[in-house]
Formats: sequence, structure tokens, C-alpha cells
Amino acid sequence: MTIGRRPELSELFEPKSVAVVGASNRPGKVGTSLFRNLLQGGFQGVAYPVNRAWHSVSGVRCYPDVASLPEAPELGVVIVPAAGVADVVEELGKAGTRGVVIISSGFREVGEAGAELEAEVVRRAARYGMSLVGPNCFGVFNTDPAVGLNATFSETLPPRGNIAFVSQSGALGAGILQYGIAERVGFSRFVSVGNRAGVDENDLLVALGRDPATRVILLYVESLADGRRFLETARDVTESKPVLVIKSGRTAAGERAAKSHTGSLAQSGRDQLYDALFAQAGVQRVDTLGELFRYAKIFSTGLSMAGPRLVILTNSGGPGIVAADAAVRHGLELPVLPAALRASLASRLPTIAAVANPLDMTADIGADSYREILASLLGAVDVDGALVISTPTGTMTASDVARSILEAKATSAKPIVACLFGLSDLSREVAFLEENGIPTYPFPEEAVGGLGSLARYHAWRTRPRTSVRTFPVDRPAADAAIARARTAGTTILPEYAARSLLAAYGIAFPPVETARSLDEALAAADRVGYPVVLKVASPEVSHKTDVGGVALGIADPPALRAAWERMQRSLRSAAPRARIEGFEVEFQIPTGKEVIVGVQRDPNFGPVVVFGMGGIYVEVLRDVTFRLAPLRTLSAEHMVESVRAFPLLQGVRGEPPSDLAALAEVIERVSQLAVELPEVVELDLNPLIVRAQGLGAVAVDARVVLGPPSRSAPTASAPR
Amino acid sequence: MTIGRRPELSELFEPKSVAVVGASNRPGKVGTSLFRNLLQGGFQGVAYPVNRAWHSVSGVRCYPDVASLPEAPELGVVIVPAAGVADVVEELGKAGTRGVVIISSGFREVGEAGAELEAEVVRRAARYGMSLVGPNCFGVFNTDPAVGLNATFSETLPPRGNIAFVSQSGALGAGILQYGIAERVGFSRFVSVGNRAGVDENDLLVALGRDPATRVILLYVESLADGRRFLETARDVTESKPVLVIKSGRTAAGERAAKSHTGSLAQSGRDQLYDALFAQAGVQRVDTLGELFRYAKIFSTGLSMAGPRLVILTNSGGPGIVAADAAVRHGLELPVLPAALRASLASRLPTIAAVANPLDMTADIGADSYREILASLLGAVDVDGALVISTPTGTMTASDVARSILEAKATSAKPIVACLFGLSDLSREVAFLEENGIPTYPFPEEAVGGLGSLARYHAWRTRPRTSVRTFPVDRPAADAAIARARTAGTTILPEYAARSLLAAYGIAFPPVETARSLDEALAAADRVGYPVVLKVASPEVSHKTDVGGVALGIADPPALRAAWERMQRSLRSAAPRARIEGFEVEFQIPTGKEVIVGVQRDPNFGPVVVFGMGGIYVEVLRDVTFRLAPLRTLSAEHMVESVRAFPLLQGVRGEPPSDLAALAEVIERVSQLAVELPEVVELDLNPLIVRAQGLGAVAVDARVVLGPPSRSAPTASAPR
Repeated sequence: MTIGRRPELSELFEPKSVAVVGASNRPGKVGTSLFRNLLQGGFQGVAYPVNRAWHSVSGVRCYPDVASLPEAPELGVVIVPAAGVADVVEELGKAGTRGVVIISSGFREVGEAGAELEAEVVRRAARYGMSLVGPNCFGVFNTDPAVGLNATFSETLPPRGNIAFVSQSGALGAGILQYGIAERVGFSRFVSVGNRAGVDENDLLVALGRDPATRVILLYVESLADGRRFLETARDVTESKPVLVIKSGRTAAGERAAKSHTGSLAQSGRDQLYDALFAQAGVQRVDTLGELFRYAKIFSTGLSMAGPRLVILTNSGGPGIVAADAAVRHGLELPVLPAALRASLASRLPTIAAVANPLDMTADIGADSYREILASLLGAVDVDGALVISTPTGTMTASDVARSILEAKATSAKPIVACLFGLSDLSREVAFLEENGIPTYPFPEEAVGGLGSLARYHAWRTRPRTSVRTFPVDRPAADAAIARARTAGTTILPEYAARSLLAAYGIAFPPVETARSLDEALAAADRVGYPVVLKVASPEVSHKTDVGGVALGIADPPALRAAWERMQRSLRSAAPRARIEGFEVEFQIPTGKEVIVGVQRDPNFGPVVVFGMGGIYVEVLRDVTFRLAPLRTLSAEHMVESVRAFPLLQGVRGEPPSDLAALAEVIERVSQLAVELPEVVELDLNPLIVRAQGLGAVAVDARVVLGPPSRSAPTASAPR
Repeated sequence: MTIGRRPELSELFEPKSVAVVGASNRPGKVGTSLFRNLLQGGFQGVAYPVNRAWHSVSGVRCYPDVASLPEAPELGVVIVPAAGVADVVEELGKAGTRGVVIISSGFREVGEAGAELEAEVVRRAARYGMSLVGPNCFGVFNTDPAVGLNATFSETLPPRGNIAFVSQSGALGAGILQYGIAERVGFSRFVSVGNRAGVDENDLLVALGRDPATRVILLYVESLADGRRFLETARDVTESKPVLVIKSGRTAAGERAAKSHTGSLAQSGRDQLYDALFAQAGVQRVDTLGELFRYAKIFSTGLSMAGPRLVILTNSGGPGIVAADAAVRHGLELPVLPAALRASLASRLPTIAAVANPLDMTADIGADSYREILASLLGAVDVDGALVISTPTGTMTASDVARSILEAKATSAKPIVACLFGLSDLSREVAFLEENGIPTYPFPEEAVGGLGSLARYHAWRTRPRTSVRTFPVDRPAADAAIARARTAGTTILPEYAARSLLAAYGIAFPPVETARSLDEALAAADRVGYPVVLKVASPEVSHKTDVGGVALGIADPPALRAAWERMQRSLRSAAPRARIEGFEVEFQIPTGKEVIVGVQRDPNFGPVVVFGMGGIYVEVLRDVTFRLAPLRTLSAEHMVESVRAFPLLQGVRGEPPSDLAALAEVIERVSQLAVELPEVVELDLNPLIVRAQGLGAVAVDARVVLGPPSRSAPTASAPR
């Protein structure tokens, strides 16, 4: 973003005057529909058509060029062919225009020549400090009647509302706005960012976060302009407004061929990185356009759900059961109602009613029961929200039910959603409820999904706040380990160097000594204590197990002797040309759980911390989780809890629970290392042995890879 | 089903005359709306109102009782209060009526007294061999204009179509029919089965399977009337018609407290049993009502998709990417287009078009390109179906696009679905496409979901057919093992007895001997060979590990001596009162993968085979799969492949692949045992060691539990 621009981007959203350069009268032209839409959309400022070819456009006096305009337009909308866009931007800039929306295509999306044109456009806009939207985009609108800006091809806009939408696909934007019209979902602002040469989703998050007319922000993105900045910005915006995102291209990345083992983790985990980023930023990721809208609808009401405890009120069993299943799928709970409440409810309902949760009042009740029973349920302390289902019976009309539900709503601030089944068209009743703050969905599952999204957002806003811990570390020792490797001209640190680097950051290792002969090894084993592990030390062997370079569980001297000889033979055949620096003799940690903690660097996301259960779980079952560094204590804990194999760490079949606090601390220390030592491009503690509660965690093997000496690795900026 | 009734249930669906007992003129009464609906719904037979209180109903001569009717009605619809229903059924039966639909409620759903009334109604209907629908139901309809039967409360019916719907919830049925009206989805027949006292989903599957007007069958069930019969019936019906089911109550069962270890598996796996049943029957289970309809819609066109290979054609990138993600989620593939085809397509498209899959033609193309390019894509041998997406541009109209797509359809029998985004209302274009056999969905994800469902059904119909193998077994030895246990008065077989039972069914065990003293154990170990496993043998110790009754990896005599003493001490403290029959000394299988194969019996499903990877995977990670016995070779293979940890059996990190054929055979043998020996109510091979390919599988521990002697366990009938 150019310095000096206001973060609200008022030049885009609230211009007092707009010049449409390329406006036209020819039917079917974008310049024709766009200018007409602007004019007919209730624009409260002045709209100027600019086109040498016309005297007037849509009945408005047309100007041959920007210089001829009677005033400097605050916003320029440009529809001329790509080759002429840079000059138009220049003219606008000279005139003093502060924002420009470039609809024209023919830029980066068509190849090299277009990319050059685009770069030139960006340079011109930057020269004049202009906000630039596009090129190759669908436009911008603002439904605020005090502005009334429709600078898109879309003739009709959805109703005014408080949902803002930012789309990297113009077509999807257009399609979705139509859906908004059909479903009567109201929007505040819309921006199609197109090629995203200037304003990107991060700028718009900031602007929409400050926009009082916007209550919920939807994003459709195919990539993020800057992952780090997104994390920072979105974390801030989600403190006050929910952000929902569709990040498409979920699966394409998974198909890329993987090169090295750790590389393959990174590749197949590409989409998981986005999951991690969104989780850390408090952004809700959804998979389908349908979900995006259903969730946005409930947020647009301003309702809040203070916990996951849902009560389902119905006059028919089936839909209640369907809703209960969906509630569990969406992370909600169905609390058991207190006995006193149940007794009180039972006294007011038919004897055959199932006074439970879901509460089936049966088809015998009248519309009034909805008010009465719903008010009682909402009054219960252990209920956070309600789903009300009504199916047609002879005892009441849908409009009576709608009124009755609304009366109950007056007694409580807890969210209510409704699902009305009918034998005739219920659109009037649905509209009545929705206008009164009760979102209504055609199916109970969808209603429950909306509430689930509300509850997740509330949990995010009220999460325990932890900070990024900074541990005292021995930075000179760490720097020395790196410097030695640089001097030796290597990028993969020898194991002892990796250990000293990690030890400087407070990671514990078992006692170890290096031996060059069997006699030295036997003496070393006596000192570190049996059982021992024997490992080859060679800068040229990166996966030791694959060449028979690791022997575990050596119980006594004869076993060490046998293992030594086996390893020599194996290395001679499997890695005959590797330069061997010696053999490490290490005390073998008796019992604990093997986990992997690592660091990778991503060009867009910077340092990423990886965690998973060791061995099979990470390598075969891909049971692994990511977070962007630096991470907070809470994130470290969430990482550990989010792998499927987490129960193994809690202790099963009589085993003691593992030292989860020590594990979280190792993750935090590794995160600190990743941030402070940008030269480390890859790091693996594999395995780290997590011992029983109170006994700590000890790394057994460490792999550290440095970037090329010349390279200055990216540093992390967004705290977590 | 009563013998002599026709499986088509024509008395319910095609009656020539219907008596509505309880028909009325009073507004708001079910008897009023139901008779009026019948009359106004275009019924082609004769409708008779029966009610002592009225001279005429809706202008039709009313009769005081069934006996006064001028002819025996083929179908009776009963709406009188519960207490009078049995007598009405009696009257109808006497008159010769063959089918009765009981709308009235007040039966089993209201408690004990109601259940008695219901039983009486069932007895009377059975006495006259009548088909009985309900009680407590919403009715039946048939949209065939030659019948025109609307015996429901619903005033309007959805359009005529070929989707049949059977619902255990009347309310959901009613609600969903309304959805069908709104979305113009056509139905053939509908039955609300209510309390399911007579006709159940199995009878209806048979009838609808034979109904030429029905092309796809939807079920909403909360439970199955008879799991075994459902498997048999549905397997048969799905050979020719797709069956889609919502089985609700997915999550409630998971909350039940679990008692024993195997019991807890069965409990938390309750819903997985339904998954297994539906998978074996070829029934597609869906989670939401929305999915149910979207899938039904595409099946109703009669389209078939001969494989999973989808091509996506679009004029805009974003929706194509969204669709590609969804395709992978729904199990479809996006084949790479052959180079020659790509070259040919590229020559007919703008240079900036992305000629890949998804194929983005860009916004510059005209409507004709849809016909041209789509026809070429459908002509490719490695494409099984197409999704076409169109977004608005200045170069074409939606109606031109729709026509163009339809022209391409004429060139191929492969399925096409469409997703049209527009800047104005496209309902005319959508209707045009749908009337011409191109299902259209508002969002690309939904369109792709529909195709995924088509492809799954085709895969089911064309699956390799395997049979249930019957292995030669030593039945007398198996019977003898059971008889010995009966004589000893025990239901948990001692380990040696369990082994001899399983060995009789061809399950291999490692050599083992029983010892009563340490000296005997040492001698036995010499014979079976080191390393050995030492295990306590006691009928009173069912989980040996928990009491220190198992010692593994005993390498030599001193180790055996130490293990023996440790075990004695442990048993004295952990199981002081257990009667110990001896100690088993067993050769320890050197290497292999630990799996669990077991049998449980379910009151509704009969014998169920369980499979999972041993230890943690089953017990903690719940990575387990079920199938109903008897099962075919293909099912056994699918079981093995469907656990998450399956890659471990394929061989990872240089390990050899496991003997999958031997494992499948063990599963099949256990299945045979479960079917042939109904007295075995529970069986666990835990672990079974699956060795490397070609080396077989060996059981290490076996647990067999018999039912009480008096009990005759259910036998399996449905082959798989």
C-alpha cells in the first residue's frame, strides 16, 4: 500500500466523482453497461463519461479526455484496451485522481507482454500515489445510499446489507451477487480484485475492518498476495468482524511431485499450511459457495452465540433427529436439560411429548407453545442458542408459529434460527422472521451449520490469550555452530553441530560421545551408560537408517561389538563413498512417545513449524499439523491436540500421560529458533522422545539445513 | 409381508376405489383435507367418504360405514380416533379391501396402551391378508395420471417424475415434497411409513424396484425394520435402480456408555455398522436433505457415468478451480487431456485460453465454442462426463449458451451437468436445459457432487462379482470344542479350546505347549523353539495383559526363568483368585503386522465381522471396519483396504508388503465360522500376525465367547 493513502480506501468506496474512461453507447459493450449501471444505480456524486468517440453517453455529456473534465474525478474507472491503460492512468494521476479501477483485460493473464503493460500501469499509479484495483476485474460497488456506487457490469445489485465480499474471480463475484439477489441476502461492499496488481485482499481487509457498514467479510481467493501480512491483518480484523474464506485450489498442489522426504511433507501439506494460517488468523475456511452464504447470512444478523450448547425445539421427531446429527457434525453440543426445567416443560406439553433435547412437542400443540416453551428453553443457563423447527399440522398456521417464535425472541438475546416446513409457499413467513433477526433455512442441517459457525467465531473471540514466549537462549553458541558450518562449506550441519545449535536453544539431548574405533565406542558406552544407540556421523549421510547407520537398544558390550561390526559392513556396501567422521554412542532414552518437531520455510508464509507423532504417523498416515512461527503457547498446545494420534500422548491402556507442557515448550523454542535464525531453512527433531509427565522431552536425532550463504532468508514479522 | 400379497403392492399404489373412513367437511380436520386432496388430485378411480356424521363430503355422497358401500373399496384410508381403528380395519377386511393406510395417531408412539391398540390393528389386518401402512403416518401418493392418487394431507403434489420417496418421518416427507415443488423435481410415488406396523422399507424397496415409473428410490429412516432383509433386498434393487438413504441418529448411539472392550467397539461402531450395511447393499448414504435431492435429481435424468473421469469446461477460471477441488472431494478424477486433443482445441480457442482440465476458454469466446469444444471433449475416450460452467460476458447470452450445450449433448451419451451464472434471472435457461436432460445446479460444487454420485453408482453396478467362498472345515472338531465348553459349563472358551475351534476352520496358530511348572515350561520352550511367548491359561482371565499374564520376546532359558517368576508374582497380586490351568509356551512369530479380526453379533444385523490394525489403531484411533457375514472375497479385500492404516500393510519404508491374500482368506474363514456356528457370539483374533507376502497369517491370541446354552443365536441369511 502506498504511504499516505488512507486505510479506509474512501477513494474507491466513497468517491464524490467518477470518470468512466471508455464509456460507450454501443450495445453489448462493457463501457456501455458500466456507465449505465453507475448512473441508474443511484450514484450520489457526479458521473463523467470519457470517450473521444461520443458527444454524450446515456444522455450525459461526454468528454474527449480526462484533461477536459470540469473537475478532477476522485475515482477513475478504466475500460479502454490494455495498450492505452497506462496513459489513461497517467492522465488521471496528473489530474489529481486518487483511485483507479481497471476493468480492462489483456495484462498479466495473457502472458509476458501483458505483464509488462501491467507493470507499467502499476508504476504510473504508484507515481501519483493512487489506489489501483485490477486490472482484469469486474469492478466495485458500495450499496450505502449516501454513495450509491455501482461500478460493475452487474445491472442489479443485491439489497443493501452488511456483508462485504472480496473476490479474486470476477465471474464468481458476479454469480454470487446474483445468488444474493435471489436469496435476499444484503451486501455492503464488493470488490473484484482481478490481477491484484495494486489493492489486494490485505488492503481490503483493513478497509472493510474499519467500515461501519460492514459486519462480516467474505473472501474468495486462489492464492494469498502475502501470507504473512494476511495473518497479521486478519488476526486484527477478526477481533471485531468475522472473516469467511474460500481458498480454492485445495487439491492441485497435492499432485505436485515431491523430491525429498521433508520436501514431500511440505508439498502435500501445502493446503494444510493454508488451514494453519486461517486457524491462526481466526478466519473460518469453508469449502463451498453454499456454506459461504449460509454462514454469512447468520453473521449479518449480528447474532452471537456464547457457547456450543444448542437446544432443538420441534413439533416433529424426524427433522429434530436430522438436526441433532448435524449439530454434532458442526461441533455443537446438545445439553441435557435440567430436571426442574424438564418437569416444568412437561407440565405444559402433551403427555406424549419427548421432553429432551431435541424437544419434540408433538403435532398436537398449538402455535402458542412455541413462544412459551422456547422462552423457557432460552432462559436456561446451559443453553446458548436454539433451532426451532415447525412442520405443518392442523393445529396451527405457519404465520402463527412465526409470530410465536418472534415473541419468544424478545425474552432473550440468544440466537434463534428457524426451519419451517410447509404444505404451501412459506416465503412470507420466512421473510417475516428474517426481517426480525431470525435467520431461516430450508433444511435443519443448514440452520445448524450457521449456528456452528457463530459459536466457532465466539470461541475465537473469547479464546484464552497467550503470548509468544521468548526463552533466554545461548545465541553466541548457536551463531558459532552456524559459522563453523559456513567455514566448512557445508549446508547440512553434522549431527554434533546440529545438537549444539539446538542445545543453545534449550532442546535437551541424551548424553552422547563420539568414537572413532570400537575400543573408543566401548569406553564411551561405559560413560554414557547402557542401553546405548550407535549412529554413524557423516555429513554425506542424511537419512542414516537407510544405510544401516543406526543401531538401537544395545544392551551390553558384546551387543555393541556385534552392532559395530554389522554397521561397518552395511556402510561399506550401502554408502561406500561417504566420508565418515566417526560414530556416536548415545545413552538410549528408556521410554516415551516418539514425535517429530520441525521447521520449514515457505516463500509466502515464512517459517512454519511442523508437528506429528513419529515414524508411521507422519510418514505414512500423514498425521501432521503446521503453524506459522512465531507461535504462542496456545497454538503450540493446539498443534499437539490436533493430530489424530493425540490420545497416545494422553496415555492409553494404563500408560502415564506424556509431558505435554515440555512438548509445547520444545515447539515454542523451535519456533523461536526459526524466527531468530533465518539461515536455518530446514530443521527436524526426529524423533523427539516425550517422556511421562514431569520427565521432559529429549531429542534423539536432529537435522539442520542452512540456506546458501549468500541468501538472506525471509524473517517473520507477524507475532502469534 | 403376508403371503399371497403381490410384491408390487398395487392395492396401495393403484387402487381402483378408495374409502376414506373419517372423511369430513369440518375445516382444519385431516379427514377434510385428505378427502378433498384425493378428489382434486385427479384420482381416476372412485373415492368414497365414510362417516356417520355426514350426508355428503366435498359434494360426494357419504356412507355411514364400510358395509354400506356399493362396492368393496380396494384401499381404505383411516382417520378415525385410535380406539376405533381396529374395528374399521375389521370392517374393511370383511368387505374384501386389500390395503389400508392408517393416518390416525395414538398408537405405539404414545406408550403402552397405544402399543396394544396397534397390535390389535396388526392382528386384524393380518387376518384378512391386508397390506397395512402406518399408523401415525402422512399417507401415500402416486403421480401416475392413470391413477392420480393423493392420499396425503398435502394439497399440492410435486410434478410427476420418477423419484420415489419412502419416509419414516411424515413431517420430513411433507417438507421435502414442498422442496420438490419449489425446485421442480418430479416424483413418482411417496409413502410415509409412520409406525411401520405393517409395510416397511423392505416391502417398499421390492415394490418400487418393480415399479416401471420409478427410476431412483430415496429413503429416510431412523432405524431399519430388519437389517438382514434390508441387505438382501437392497442388494437386489440396486442392481437396477439407485437407492439413496438418509439414516439419521448417526451420533446418538456413539454416546451410549460402553461396558466391555469389545462391547465398546460395537457401541461406538453402531453407526459404522450402518455404513457397512449400506456399502454391502450398494446403497448410497448421504448426510443432508440437500444432498439427497441433488443426487436424486441427476439420477432422475437416467444419465449414467461410466467412470470417474470428469472434464470441466468453463469460460472463467474461478468457478473451474472451485469445481476441480470439489471433484477430488467427491472421488472424481480430472484426466490430463491427450496432447493431440489439446492441440486441436488450442487451435480453435483464443491464445490465452488454458487448454487443460479444467479448460478455461476465457471470456472472449462466443456461445458456439461451447458446442464445438464440449463435443470434442465428450468424444475423448478418457472422459466419462462433463461439467459446463458459464459466466456472463458481453460475447454471448445465456440462452445461446444453453442451446449450444444442448447441441453438444446430441453428439454423446456421456452425462453433462451445467452451472450457469448470470447477471439476470436465468430460470428460463435452467428449465430449458433440465427439460432436455441436462441437470443444472446453482453452484459448481453441487453439480460435481451429483456426477460423483452417478459415478459411484456405476462403479457399484459394474463391480467385479465375487462369491462367498466356502472352505472345507473340520466341523466335528469345532463342534467338539463347543461341546466341551458346554460340558464344563463355561461360555468363555479356554485358549486351547478357542484355538482348536479356530484351527478347525483353518486359522493357523504358532506351535504351543502347555506347562504347569517352570521345568515343564523350559522343556516346552526347547521343543517349540526360542524366542517364545509365555501366557497364563485361565478361564477367569479374559484380558491377560492387564494382569501381567503375557510375557513376550523371551530369548533364552534364563529369560524364561525370569519371566516365569515375574508372572507368578504379578498374578498373585493382580488376579489372586483366578483358577490357573497352566501356562502356554509358544513360539513367537518373528515379524509381521499385528491386526485384529473378530466377530460380533447384532440383534438386527446378525453376525458382523470386524477388522482393524492391532493395538493402538483399533483401541485408541478407532481405525476399524465392519461387514456383515457372510462376506465375499471382494468385501474382505475392501475391509482391509478401507482402514486408514492400510498403507502399513502395503509395506512402507522398505518393508515387504504383507500377505493380503492370506489376510482376506482369514477374514472369509472367520465369516464362514460366524455363519455356521451361531453359538459363537463373540470372537477375537487379537492379534493376528500377517507376515510378508507368501508367508501367510498366524493368530497369536484367540478369544471365543459362546452364548448361553439355551439361546439359539440368529443365523445369517443374506449372502454377500
